[in-house]
Amino acid sequence: MAPSIAPPAPPASTFDLSEASSSPNNIPLGQYLFLRIAQANPKLRTVFGIPGDFNLNLLEHLYSKPVAEDAGLRIANLCNELNAAYTADGYARAIDGLAVLITTFGVGELSACNGVAGSFTEYSPVLHIVGTTSTRQQSLQDDQPIINHHHLLQNKDPLKQPDHDVYRKMADHICVVNEKLAISDVNSGDIYGKIDKVLRTILQQRRPGYLFVPSDIPDMMVDARMLDRPFIVDDEPAMPVMDDVVSVILRKLYAAKSPAVLSDALTARFGHTATVQAFVDKLPANLRLFSTNLARNIDETKDNFVGCYYGVGSPSPQINWELEHNTDFLLHLGIFNAETNTAGYSMDFSNIQDKVIIHPDYLVLDGWTHSLIKGGRRLFTMGQLLARLAERVETNKFTGIETKEWYKHNPQKLHKPDAETDNQYVSQSKLVDAVTECLSPNDILVVETCSFQFAMPDVKLPTGVKYITQAVWGSIGYALPATLGVTFAVNDMGLTDRRIWLLEGDGSAQMTVQELSTYLRYHDILKVNPTIFVINNSGYTVERLINGPTRSYNDIQSTWQWSKLLQVFGDVDKKYHHSSKVNNVAEFDQWFANEEYDGKLNVVDVTAGKMDVSDRFLSLFLKK
Amino acid sequence: MAPSIAPPAPPASTFDLSEASSSPNNIPLGQYLFLRIAQANPKLRTVFGIPGDFNLNLLEHLYSKPVAEDAGLRIANLCNELNAAYTADGYARAIDGLAVLITTFGVGELSACNGVAGSFTEYSPVLHIVGTTSTRQQSLQDDQPIINHHHLLQNKDPLKQPDHDVYRKMADHICVVNEKLAISDVNSGDIYGKIDKVLRTILQQRRPGYLFVPSDIPDMMVDARMLDRPFIVDDEPAMPVMDDVVSVILRKLYAAKSPAVLSDALTARFGHTATVQAFVDKLPANLRLFSTNLARNIDETKDNFVGCYYGVGSPSPQINWELEHNTDFLLHLGIFNAETNTAGYSMDFSNIQDKVIIHPDYLVLDGWTHSLIKGGRRLFTMGQLLARLAERVETNKFTGIETKEWYKHNPQKLHKPDAETDNQYVSQSKLVDAVTECLSPNDILVVETCSFQFAMPDVKLPTGVKYITQAVWGSIGYALPATLGVTFAVNDMGLTDRRIWLLEGDGSAQMTVQELSTYLRYHDILKVNPTIFVINNSGYTVERLINGPTRSYNDIQSTWQWSKLLQVFGDVDKKYHHSSKVNNVAEFDQWFANEEYDGKLNVVDVTAGKMDVSDRFLSLFLKK
Repeated sequence: MAPSIAPPAPPASTFDLSEASSSPNNIPLGQYLFLRIAQANPKLRTVFGIPGDFNLNLLEHLYSKPVAEDAGLRIANLCNELNAAYTADGYARAIDGLAVLITTFGVGELSACNGVAGSFTEYSPVLHIVGTTSTRQQSLQDDQPIINHHHLLQNKDPLKQPDHDVYRKMADHICVVNEKLAISDVNSGDIYGKIDKVLRTILQQRRPGYLFVPSDIPDMMVDARMLDRPFIVDDEPAMPVMDDVVSVILRKLYAAKSPAVLSDALTARFGHTATVQAFVDKLPANLRLFSTNLARNIDETKDNFVGCYYGVGSPSPQINWELEHNTDFLLHLGIFNAETNTAGYSMDFSNIQDKVIIHPDYLVLDGWTHSLIKGGRRLFTMGQLLARLAERVETNKFTGIETKEWYKHNPQKLHKPDAETDNQYVSQSKLVDAVTECLSPNDILVVETCSFQFAMPDVKLPTGVKYITQAVWGSIGYALPATLGVTFAVNDMGLTDRRIWLLEGDGSAQMTVQELSTYLRYHDILKVNPTIFVINNSGYTVERLINGPTRSYNDIQSTWQWSKLLQVFGDVDKKYHHSSKVNNVAEFDQWFANEEYDGKLNVVDVTAGKMDVSDRFLSLFLKK
Repeated sequence: MAPSIAPPAPPASTFDLSEASSSPNNIPLGQYLFLRIAQANPKLRTVFGIPGDFNLNLLEHLYSKPVAEDAGLRIANLCNELNAAYTADGYARAIDGLAVLITTFGVGELSACNGVAGSFTEYSPVLHIVGTTSTRQQSLQDDQPIINHHHLLQNKDPLKQPDHDVYRKMADHICVVNEKLAISDVNSGDIYGKIDKVLRTILQQRRPGYLFVPSDIPDMMVDARMLDRPFIVDDEPAMPVMDDVVSVILRKLYAAKSPAVLSDALTARFGHTATVQAFVDKLPANLRLFSTNLARNIDETKDNFVGCYYGVGSPSPQINWELEHNTDFLLHLGIFNAETNTAGYSMDFSNIQDKVIIHPDYLVLDGWTHSLIKGGRRLFTMGQLLARLAERVETNKFTGIETKEWYKHNPQKLHKPDAETDNQYVSQSKLVDAVTECLSPNDILVVETCSFQFAMPDVKLPTGVKYITQAVWGSIGYALPATLGVTFAVNDMGLTDRRIWLLEGDGSAQMTVQELSTYLRYHDILKVNPTIFVINNSGYTVERLINGPTRSYNDIQSTWQWSKLLQVFGDVDKKYHHSSKVNNVAEFDQWFANEEYDGKLNVVDVTAGKMDVSDRFLSLFLKK
């Protein structure tokens, strides 16, 4: 999502709130909230959640005409709250903007918290709305009778009132903004600013925020005219400072003899893929481009795209040589400092003479780290800086680049035919080939945290393919519901030409399997559906390689008939899905040969090897 | 579990720890930990968990001879961590002692936290062991390179090290003890006391505790001789004080003309059911006994058992009259002050002249509340007090009871034949009858949070039946994995004569359904298995009654073929399970007529009414 730049909103005091209760402009707070959310993400159509006593009267406002018909919002129920959090995360990533998760007090919100923590770690802008006990219920003092509501932890001192804010305190660790609405906020008019603060902070920092809504708040009346204020994510940049930075970067770039640009994952996670592409498209044809393992957001078909740089996990040592030893100036965009984006911190920039590093919160220039937040205010955002770079860069100013030839990585077919393997299972090397071949431009590829994830640098991505994975948080079970979220997003955006692919380990799929049923529930909405390869290797193969290769704790119940699950979930006649089981390479090739995409959900149970991993996985663990 | 009373343990300094590393008495910490756990609960055979990078080398010690063969411990893997937490909770409740849950850093532990919070709220003694980053990884300072490990939230300031204790801070709200093991603890010998502190606190307070085990700790060597110290849960009681209290209570009881004993849920949750029964069995035959909705731990076949007292939810107004208006002295044992144990605080003790209330942490005597913790020390435990009451009470000292006759509630068959209902679905009134009839003495009945839960006061329980439900925390999805935990416990204890029954709503069952597969995985261990009635009413009927009866948010994907799920999970030939679908009362009666229990898992898909609830549910909500 490109940053919105607009003049500051008028203060709430512009409106006479004393008129509110009698005014025809009054609408319920619940309705206002959903309409404001729709302004914060105009692409949003689906919010995700599970009902519970404390959120029912908030959910009711989703069915009001302004929300349901005019703004076009709907709720999609998931089977449980953790799955809902994963789904919202996938939706946010695919739609490149705010996603919404709605749960109930205690039981719901805590079930979701691992998913929300994942959104924090992986920079996914999810708003988590929690319906709570009412403000009246929260107002009891210790000298009144002690009331312990359901869904509420008792005070550790049984003679004191429970702490209705206990979950807020837990949530504060996994979010960037955390507010509770109050009756006094409605009366004072602070409620509008509070809601905007939550929405803006989430979008500015691309991380989750919490809004706690007591059950007696959604029906309170507020002033609908507050929706006339434009919704603004980012403040205006401090232009002179930003332009100075851009000038410095461009001067270094223009002067370099062997410059390189590395697009790192936070460019993608902050929604700046198009901006980065616009920038690199204006660079000279001999300026070498790289992306990182979790970025993969530079067009890999460009002649000057060298490859995925991933330290000891790079698909070829020449990529590392090009970046580490043949670069005099590196422009590192959107650095994502994480073990699984750096192959265990094996990236090596020590031989590069000069570099500029851009992070959403800081810049590294000439070896000095400069915070972008001064006196509580952000000087400019990474998006504003990247857009300005793309705007100001001039191809003809580059005169010093001496690079005549450079290494360009083109993944080879890695699969070495092996009679035994071919007959008994589909090897991961074969999977690398298959995924490389099946992808078309603009497809979305979701890969679960699994052995195959480590092989992703070996897959060449066609133009515009979006790669979604959760390698930093690494919570297995994520990808199946996240792909459901991607599917909702693709359908909500009407992108019927984008295919969705998921590679998912069987142990992971068991964690969140019920969400397959949700594809059936919303078959009337979901016209474009994913193809899901279940990598059926009878357990946790990554863990087997680390420890306990034959231990029972790395096993799962391996008798599941994956290709029959959706029939048992209700699609008996396979009206809304396809499914099949492929036991070896010949059957896998046959599946591909016969495959014709008709938009239906497709579950392919791929027999894999219990100890088989890709060459890349082995090389990573051997090198480390 | 009866409190263990024994002399204080010898201090750690008794042993010369400098000998440890060279001594033949050395064993790895991981092994020591599991052996100490086995001492804390000698009935324990199964621990529950999911592997992850950070706990693998702890799990390895489960396979050592002393742990696996001598102590007889094993791990049972669940499909995901929330389910594992629920399973551990069910195990703790059924075995009446410590249960163990093992997860991995961040992703695993946070997925489980809703289940652990439930164990806190419902008083279930679960030890949650979390494998974390190593002590070395945790030791980095901000002036060193910032290392962001997988499974770890980054610091909100990207230029600072992540906080490896962030999850401990979150967990602290949902547990009563929270410790992290350190290398220095091993070296100083503090480790033995730290482990005992965690285990004892959990058992004393019957609530969860956390033990964070960095990945480089389990292989460190410790002194096996520390296992020779007896494991002691409770300190000796302050005997003169406790006996004074017992004397006061007995004096009041002996003197009363119309006394009553109300067994509340914390007697059951703290494992004192046998003690309470021993006490009430020594009371005169005309001293009236009551239990609460969540207690149900007094033999309901006794002539002086009046009924389940549940305020406006009591199964008959005469029960309330007997307790509220015909009692001059009430002995209220193990009070559980919670909305769903008091029918929304509709219990009324205002007309009772005198009462004594016993809570694990305090007593109410003559209107004064006395904390049982003085100067950081507990004077005595509820278990010690109850045991002493049972020991000292003398039947022949009761001379003043004037009660000649009293109301005794005997549930009537509530089911009113109704042609339409009978043909289209099985009504909840019919279910009340069915459950009442199917239970045998000593069975275990698990009821999910669902409409049927509200009807439980109407079910008469045979002698020794254990009722397990999670009505206070009320997290739907709990009961299916909790029943799996109950099943492990029953089999681990060799109680082959106890049948297990589960009533579970379909919306709840969808949340945690994959755990049905785990019955198949452990079919060689689980000889006694539950009969599961899936109340198939196409959604969240309780919520429908509260709000949105026809709203989509209260629907689920209702096409699941519950009776075929276990075949798709792998038991194609129904070797290990039975399943059936009953569509109406005639078929339900037929099912009962044909049923012969052979120990196998049995899933019965019971067609229920979308808006049908028991009379009790309606009366509760109408009265409130």
